[in-house]
This record gives sequence, C-alpha cells and structure tokens, in this order.
Amino acid sequence: MRAAIFNEPRNITAGDRPDAAIKEPSDAVVRVVLACVCGSDLWYYRGETPFEPGPIGHEFIGVIEDVGTDVTTLRNGDLVISPFAFSDGSCPNCQNGITTSCVNGGFFPMNGDGGQGEAVRVPLADTTLVTVPGSGHSDEMQRSLLTLSDVFATGHHAAVCARVKPGDTVAVVGDGAVGLSGVLAAKRLGAERIIALSRHADRQALAKEFGATDIVAERGDGAVQAVKELTDGVGVDATLECVGTGQAMQTAIDIARAGSMVGFVGVPHGVELPIGQMFRQTVGVHGGGAPVRVYLPELLEDVLAERINPGRVLDYETDLDGIGDAYAAMDERRAIKSLVRVGSL
Amino acid sequence: MRAAIFNEPRNITAGDRPDAAIKEPSDAVVRVVLACVCGSDLWYYRGETPFEPGPIGHEFIGVIEDVGTDVTTLRNGDLVISPFAFSDGSCPNCQNGITTSCVNGGFFPMNGDGGQGEAVRVPLADTTLVTVPGSGHSDEMQRSLLTLSDVFATGHHAAVCARVKPGDTVAVVGDGAVGLSGVLAAKRLGAERIIALSRHADRQALAKEFGATDIVAERGDGAVQAVKELTDGVGVDATLECVGTGQAMQTAIDIARAGSMVGFVGVPHGVELPIGQMFRQTVGVHGGGAPVRVYLPELLEDVLAERINPGRVLDYETDLDGIGDAYAAMDERRAIKSLVRVGSL
Repeated sequence: MRAAIFNEPRNITAGDRPDAAIKEPSDAVVRVVLACVCGSDLWYYRGETPFEPGPIGHEFIGVIEDVGTDVTTLRNGDLVISPFAFSDGSCPNCQNGITTSCVNGGFFPMNGDGGQGEAVRVPLADTTLVTVPGSGHSDEMQRSLLTLSDVFATGHHAAVCARVKPGDTVAVVGDGAVGLSGVLAAKRLGAERIIALSRHADRQALAKEFGATDIVAERGDGAVQAVKELTDGVGVDATLECVGTGQAMQTAIDIARAGSMVGFVGVPHGVELPIGQMFRQTVGVHGGGAPVRVYLPELLEDVLAERINPGRVLDYETDLDGIGDAYAAMDERRAIKSLVRVGSL
Repeated sequence: MRAAIFNEPRNITAGDRPDAAIKEPSDAVVRVVLACVCGSDLWYYRGETPFEPGPIGHEFIGVIEDVGTDVTTLRNGDLVISPFAFSDGSCPNCQNGITTSCVNGGFFPMNGDGGQGEAVRVPLADTTLVTVPGSGHSDEMQRSLLTLSDVFATGHHAAVCARVKPGDTVAVVGDGAVGLSGVLAAKRLGAERIIALSRHADRQALAKEFGATDIVAERGDGAVQAVKELTDGVGVDATLECVGTGQAMQTAIDIARAGSMVGFVGVPHGVELPIGQMFRQTVGVHGGGAPVRVYLPELLEDVLAERINPGRVLDYETDLDGIGDAYAAMDERRAIKSLVRVGSL
C-alpha cells in the first residue's frame, strides 16, 4: 500500500509499505479516507525531536475493511474515527479517564502503520475506534469528524484541564490548529469572554468565527500587559497553553488570575515552570495528551448535530503524493492545518 | 510590649517592641493568647531564606483589645482567629477565593507586628479576623482553633488543590505539621485510603490517629516503589506535597496516578518541575499559600463540633521567653510544632 514515510527531517514522501493487516484478534484494519498533519509531527519534520525513519501520522478517519476474530462492535464498511492513541478501555488508567496512559495501549505508528497512509492496523479496535452513525456525510462534515481524531479533542482537553466553566473569561495562547480548537472548545463549554492571542489575520478571523471576543496580537510581555488591561489587572479565569514552548507557557502563567489553572497540550519543548511564581499566585498547570477516546462521544454528538464545525481549521488540502507539501505548508505557516485526502467514503 | 524578635539566623529572642496600636480605621488590635511556629519560619531560622531583623510569626489567636472607627463586626473581648494573611474580602482575587493575593492585603509581619508577641495590629480587621462563638473554650479546643490560623487550613488547601474527593486513595508527602494536617484534611474530605509518607514513629502514630490507613517509611525511589505496590502499580488519586523540596515534589509526581493532581503547599525551595513527565502522565500541580479566610468558616464549624482535633499537631509548648527553644525544638525535630503560650482567655 501507499503511505507517508519519514525519511529524515524535511524529507517525508509517499512510498510503498506492507499492506496493513490483522495481526491480533482484537485488531481492525481501517481503509483511510481522510488524514491530516499534526503540529506535533512538525517537531519531527523540523528535526527538533528524533524520529525513526518509517511510517508517520496519527490522525485519520476511514472505513473498516477487516476485523480480528475478537472484535464484536465493528463491522466492515463502518465509518470510524480513530483517536491518536489506542487503548483497552479497561485498565485502571483508562477507567480513570486517561486512555493515553493505557497500560496495554500505545500511539500510532507504534502499531506499525502511520495514520497518513492508505490503511492502518488499529490494535484494541473495539475500545479504540468510534463508529460514526449515519451515511453520506458531506465533505465538510467529514473534515470535522477528522478533527475529533486529535486536534479538536486536544483543544477540548486544554479547556478541560484549565477547568473552563460557564461564564468564564478564558485566554488561549497559540493560534495554531490546537489553539483555534481551544477557542471553540472554550466557547462550547460556556466561556463568556475568550481572548485569543494571535498575530495572523487569517487565524484571528477563524478565532472570531469560533467564538473569540478579543484578539491580542502582541507576544511576551506585551501580550501579558494587553490581557491584564482587558481584565482590569486581574488575569483570566482559565488559560489554554496550546504551543508547548517556554515563552508560551510563561505568558500563560503570567496572564492566569490568582487561583486559576493553565491547561497545556502542546508537547513541552524547553519549558521551565516558574514554581515560585505559581506558588505566589496559586496558579496551577495540568495537561498532556488528550484522552480522545473518552471525549469522543460527547464531541461527536455536537459535530453531527452541526452545533460546532471544528473542521474549519483544515485550510489546506493535498493527497498522499503531496504529503511533503502538506508538512511544508504548515512549517512555512502557509497552512493552519493540512488535510491529506487519501480515499473516499 | 514583649514579642519575638528575629535577630539573625538561629537567634530569635523575646524582646521589647512598641505596643501594637490602631493606625488605620479598619485596624483591630488583638491581644494574643496562643501563637505557634510555622515550618516556613524555619527557612528564616536556618538562614536559608533572607529575613529582615525584627518581628516574626504569623499564626495566632487572641482577644480583641481595640478596634478602629471603621470596624463594625468585631467587639473588644471577642475571641478571634487570624489568618496568616490579611485581606479586604472584596478585591477580585478575594472574590475569586484567593485571599492570599488580595490586592490591598499582605502577610504578617508586614503590618509591623509579628504573630509571636503579646499583641498584634491586624489590618482590614472586619474581613480578616473570624470570631469564635461561645466562651470558656478548653485548652484542647484553643489549640485546635490556633491551627486554623495556618497549619490545618494549609493541609486543607493541599487537599483542595489535589482535588481530593470521597472514596479517593490519597498520599501525603511530608510528616511535618502540615503533612499531618493534610492527612486529617483528606480524611475529612472523604478519602477512603490515606498513605502517609513518614519515617518517624511519633508522627506515624499521629498520622494514623488522623486517618492514615497506610504508612510508607521509605524516601525517594523506595517510597515511589512502596506506594506503587500499595496501589497495584497505578499510583494514587490525589497527592499532597507538604514539604517544598525538590525531592518531595518529585516523589509526589512519581506516585500520582495518570490524570491526577498534586496539591503543593510547602514554600518551594529548589523545586524543578518535570514538565515532560507531567505531560506524559497528565499529572498536574496546583498550590500556594492557603486562602485561610475562605476556608475558616467551614473548618471552624467542624472544630467547634469536635469532629476534628487538628490541635494534636502541637506537641511542644513554651512561652515567649522560650521562643528560641520553640524554634530549636522544631529545627532539631524534637517537636512536630511548637505552641507559644502568650496569654490566657
């Protein structure tokens, strides 16, 4: 089959890989319809985090093509969303709601296939994949379903970890696809005022479409000052840190009001937490990889009901042959997030 | 008046100070009945944190001796508990429940008097002090009331920040007075199983009296292994970090189960938070100085009803003349916490 292959930093191409196939009785094989590139993939693309040459990608939706003998809830032809992590749903960590720490689970492409390819073997399929009811979903709907694989669920996780509640004033640091998803997630959870830290006109526009009430274009100290001015010097009730750099985290902690939480979902790179400041201001931090499988049912319901349209973050499109360009477009900020159209329903 | 004076590290003596007196219309003067020494005072005593020579101490209960012209809720003769921070109750941070970040408040002895002395000027008295109903409270009751000034409220804060909920398995790192208070606070909040990390027999005994179900005497990696064994490898639902050192925080994060929170209340000294590990395990941290004034009403109710007896942490007693020994006893671990008997009801 054809699939994206990470050769070396800045060199990701479509190539031939062994066909995805059932290996364990709990596996399913998913024929990929839509995939996309994650901001976390860019760390590998840029050579800032080591990555083994081979398959890459972990966000995809597709159609069940084959199931192992133990699989009971999935049937060939089902449209499914795959979380970026596979999980058994029954271990203590899964039972505690953190499927990303499943003791029997893992992350694509640890399964042997990346998400950016024609097909994927999905371990623990019954407890990992979520079937999408209905049929004939529009392209727009399919794009939103794809974001439930990672990016929108990750924005939601940032909002959950930041303890966003109805009526809150929320700030979102980062205007990448995750940050924009965080804006939408905060709005969905009832935030009354949402301050998006964004310096790009196209992203500011999408942030506003998603529910941002205020835009702060400054960075660093300027951003802190601007947010403080918008909040009478107090800071915000909940902060979503959606970048993962030291500066983004420091800004997030600086603008958090006393007693509040910073939810962080960007893989940390060079982040040093200012523990003394956190103590003095009673500002906490909580975050990590989103337990997508746990959030999927409630988010799926809102997407299918067209109450939210998170697929709007996918503003660039290519196919498997264009996989290199899908990465380059995000790296060069020509794209917020690149859709990779692999097949059709 | 007589009061404790910090002369230099390891040199704290009783000496003469100007009488505490009303300076602002919102002040009250409290004649101190009982005071005590805080673990945080030991950082100054040991010379590990700079401290200006002068008055010291911030935990006390006493009787109102004088009130300013703006004070409406307090009367001479009232028995009151003073939080270690004074606060106006109306600024945005107070309204958000973080009285320790009051924009018009501060910490004793910023008011000019330390808590370890015959009398204290308390700023913002109406919104800082809490009157104790009833009269003729026993010595045992007075000791428990004193712990609401800081130490028990601080243990409670650790449990609140760790999001302890009924049925939880909780671990408490640190067997000082705050850690032991944390055990009692976790029990009060409904924790089903409480693992106390303690290596001293007397403290283990008090931890058990307060509700600890398991004792782990190891430190560092040994403690982590022991707690993991007690929890089937999963870790605990909520962790209270009640020391403030790097090792204690690392242990706390190591034993926290995926998705859980570490509440930290020890003033951080040499703590570097392992952000990568926190991300991978989705373990958050939240803490700071306890907003005592916010917690006081509910804690006071339980103390007066004798449902809890937090005064048991005060296992050493002296008077103002013995203030140096009060510090030395805690420094040398002869005392869990030193009571300073200053006056009587």
